[in-house]
Amino acid sequence: MEKKYSDDGFMLHTDLYQINMLETYWRDGLHKRKSIFELFFRKLPFGNGFAVFAGLERIVQYIENFRFTDDDIAYLRNEAGYGEDFLDYLNNLRFTGKITSMREGEVVFGSEPLIRVDAPLGEAQLIETALLNIVNYQTLIATKASRIKHVVGNEVAMEFGTRRAQEMDAALWGTRAAYLAGFDSTSNVRAGKLFGIPVAGTHAHSMVQAYRDEYAAFSKYAETHKDCVFLVDTYDTLRSGVPNAIKVAREFGDRINFIGVRLDSGDLAYLSKEARRMLDEAGFPDAKVVASSDLDEYTIVNLKSQGAKIDSWGIGTKLITAYDQAALGAVYKIVSIENEAGVMEDTIKISANPEKVTTPGLKKVYRIINKKKGYAEGDYITLEGENPASEKRLKMFHPTHTYIKKYVSDFEARELHTDIYADGKLVYKLPSLEEIRKYAKESLGHLWDEYKRSLNPEEYPVDLSQKCWDNKMRNIEEVRAKVERIGAE
Amino acid sequence: MEKKYSDDGFMLHTDLYQINMLETYWRDGLHKRKSIFELFFRKLPFGNGFAVFAGLERIVQYIENFRFTDDDIAYLRNEAGYGEDFLDYLNNLRFTGKITSMREGEVVFGSEPLIRVDAPLGEAQLIETALLNIVNYQTLIATKASRIKHVVGNEVAMEFGTRRAQEMDAALWGTRAAYLAGFDSTSNVRAGKLFGIPVAGTHAHSMVQAYRDEYAAFSKYAETHKDCVFLVDTYDTLRSGVPNAIKVAREFGDRINFIGVRLDSGDLAYLSKEARRMLDEAGFPDAKVVASSDLDEYTIVNLKSQGAKIDSWGIGTKLITAYDQAALGAVYKIVSIENEAGVMEDTIKISANPEKVTTPGLKKVYRIINKKKGYAEGDYITLEGENPASEKRLKMFHPTHTYIKKYVSDFEARELHTDIYADGKLVYKLPSLEEIRKYAKESLGHLWDEYKRSLNPEEYPVDLSQKCWDNKMRNIEEVRAKVERIGAE
Repeated sequence: MEKKYSDDGFMLHTDLYQINMLETYWRDGLHKRKSIFELFFRKLPFGNGFAVFAGLERIVQYIENFRFTDDDIAYLRNEAGYGEDFLDYLNNLRFTGKITSMREGEVVFGSEPLIRVDAPLGEAQLIETALLNIVNYQTLIATKASRIKHVVGNEVAMEFGTRRAQEMDAALWGTRAAYLAGFDSTSNVRAGKLFGIPVAGTHAHSMVQAYRDEYAAFSKYAETHKDCVFLVDTYDTLRSGVPNAIKVAREFGDRINFIGVRLDSGDLAYLSKEARRMLDEAGFPDAKVVASSDLDEYTIVNLKSQGAKIDSWGIGTKLITAYDQAALGAVYKIVSIENEAGVMEDTIKISANPEKVTTPGLKKVYRIINKKKGYAEGDYITLEGENPASEKRLKMFHPTHTYIKKYVSDFEARELHTDIYADGKLVYKLPSLEEIRKYAKESLGHLWDEYKRSLNPEEYPVDLSQKCWDNKMRNIEEVRAKVERIGAE
Repeated sequence: MEKKYSDDGFMLHTDLYQINMLETYWRDGLHKRKSIFELFFRKLPFGNGFAVFAGLERIVQYIENFRFTDDDIAYLRNEAGYGEDFLDYLNNLRFTGKITSMREGEVVFGSEPLIRVDAPLGEAQLIETALLNIVNYQTLIATKASRIKHVVGNEVAMEFGTRRAQEMDAALWGTRAAYLAGFDSTSNVRAGKLFGIPVAGTHAHSMVQAYRDEYAAFSKYAETHKDCVFLVDTYDTLRSGVPNAIKVAREFGDRINFIGVRLDSGDLAYLSKEARRMLDEAGFPDAKVVASSDLDEYTIVNLKSQGAKIDSWGIGTKLITAYDQAALGAVYKIVSIENEAGVMEDTIKISANPEKVTTPGLKKVYRIINKKKGYAEGDYITLEGENPASEKRLKMFHPTHTYIKKYVSDFEARELHTDIYADGKLVYKLPSLEEIRKYAKESLGHLWDEYKRSLNPEEYPVDLSQKCWDNKMRNIEEVRAKVERIGAE
């Protein structure tokens, strides 16, 4: 276990090409040029109608620790072979830029900037990988959790996925993402400690096996814990588990809170109805039926449609890994760069895949909220200087199918980004997790139900202002003309 | 960012129910009873014919740090409400048990113990969640990487997934898993530093955009780096990217190593053939074509069947998240426990899902290798005291479809587990990552090709000895009889 380089930090949590590009910029004097990068995803995950933004607190943690360690520099010197002059530069590198971002918990959509970085080119480039890694995962899980909580409704949703999470950080930050998007508790104790999330859990099959007798195991648990949920499927749910749980609940009476029973395998629809009936007949109408076993929004909807009697849902693998779509696919693209004369110039990436063409320019994102109804009419992306609030009647048109348009009046144009860093200093007071959770609920409250359903939701408009759209078209034309010239050479 | 509890460690990376069970064991005096737990998965991932075991180094890291911090205890006291006497016990808790395990890189199969823990019940119970979290992810990724490397063959496979990994730990440990299973390099610099994995990468689209001119960007990169791979799809791969790469390669001549070009979008089959032709015609037959863009074993096989001319494959999202099956599903089950009289008694979990029935007893796993051919005939699970090597003619039969059987003679029975911990002390010298990588190759070398193909492989036999099978049946019968009695009450 002796390692050549043992100190560790976030700084090398990056792709090698970032450092190689940085070297080119630095040697060529471009590293201080002002640049604007935007982080966004193109397509909503899970066929959902929205996503829930998460990851900002972790990004702040990353930026606050933005400096290479001695071991980092030694590694880059000895193994990667960078020159001393460049290493000196890296050694002194700090983040000096500006970051604006969506708030955690904000409902967000495809092709809109979630984060905007205005920083010297070298710095803005270097933070790409970490920002993507963080936002991609946490936003994915917050969105998945929101979908699941949507079908769970007023019942309890518990995060149970640690053992199946993709390593330790995922268990921790995934749980946080789930909680901010509406989950009620977690089994992960570290998340309880570090984030104050309520923790839940009683016992596993192994306890029943350790006693080699279900009744003995339940009794011993009841002797040592006030709150009792008995796991009833170690041997036979209806013939052994539920009867033993009832027996122990009767014997212990008021000495315990008999919260209920947990089902973890078999036909949950049938078993939950039978367990419910047995509990009711035994005089425990308030005892809950908790269920777990590879659940997600699809199985939950199905179980409910079969009349399953489940009060509390434990969700593991399918949530914490976003099993049906395990990656979000957010990207980080440069949209503007200072030229030799100190003037900002827009920049664009064209692609053989049309959806990969970027939208150039310094931009802002507004949520257009219908004042009368309180609901959002869509998001509206403008160039930096525009002020949609000053317009009486806002024209909103689809950025690809431009004939789809509408006019909105009596609206509030709420700017979605907030300042996080200015001149390299943190200027944002990170809200508590409870505040974020509340904010997520409010943000979702501005959406019509048509965007919120989990199957085939309506497409929420994310439109470009006329100026922003014109600017994009002009940039595309310029690049095309240039490519034609090279092709003709 | 002020947190109530700020120190952090691995110890609360667990499910709450582990601590609740531990409290019951401790209050009831069961916590010191000798117990045996086994970690295994039931079903091979991705329809693959084998899995590649990984995670042991991280487990050792975890066990070496197995102690609650002051903040852990404070949290458990203040928020979770455990009593002082129990907290005293937790505070002094250390791991004192024995762990045997498969070696990292070992080719492994469903329903065989990957790790066996012989420890006092409390300790063995408490480490469950972390062990599962670690093995589930790392073994999953090593297996996925092995599948991908299998179709890549002698060409180069590079891990490029950090930005899409499920948070930071996944990027780091997933990369390590990919490398030990045969990948050649990674873009993740932290993995390069901490594990010595070769790092790779040159530049992104943003560099071309920062210069607002592809030729200028390539030239500047060439001025500042000896090894050059130019990313050619920022504007137009064949009309702009490849011609500019060739132009710069000609101008710089011997001043750079023109390693090649990278394609990152569009029709990779067509573009790679065209790029190959252009490079050849320009006098660069040794320049490589590197491709990336949501690749996995399926797209690679397809691209090859279309005659794509790709020398080096950059694999991101689909590898690092195991996109088509994002969780392995390993479990950790108690198989034997000391009774009041100090005698070990077997224990079993029955389930309404037949594949979830556990195999009780103290067991060992052997790989039966045909001495003449050097290939494995299957894995053979025995009870502790058995010695398959002493048998002249070994009967191997399918544990479910018992009529499927064969007799093997002239074999080597290689025990697959090695001692990692004894009496709580690390007794295993962790091999270097290069040694593990070599071992993985050797382990795979014992498999017939029929088990190695990525589509519809043959099922590798994992059989129980007659004694082990008889013991399981006896345990099932005992539990059934008991359930009948409760049902009749």
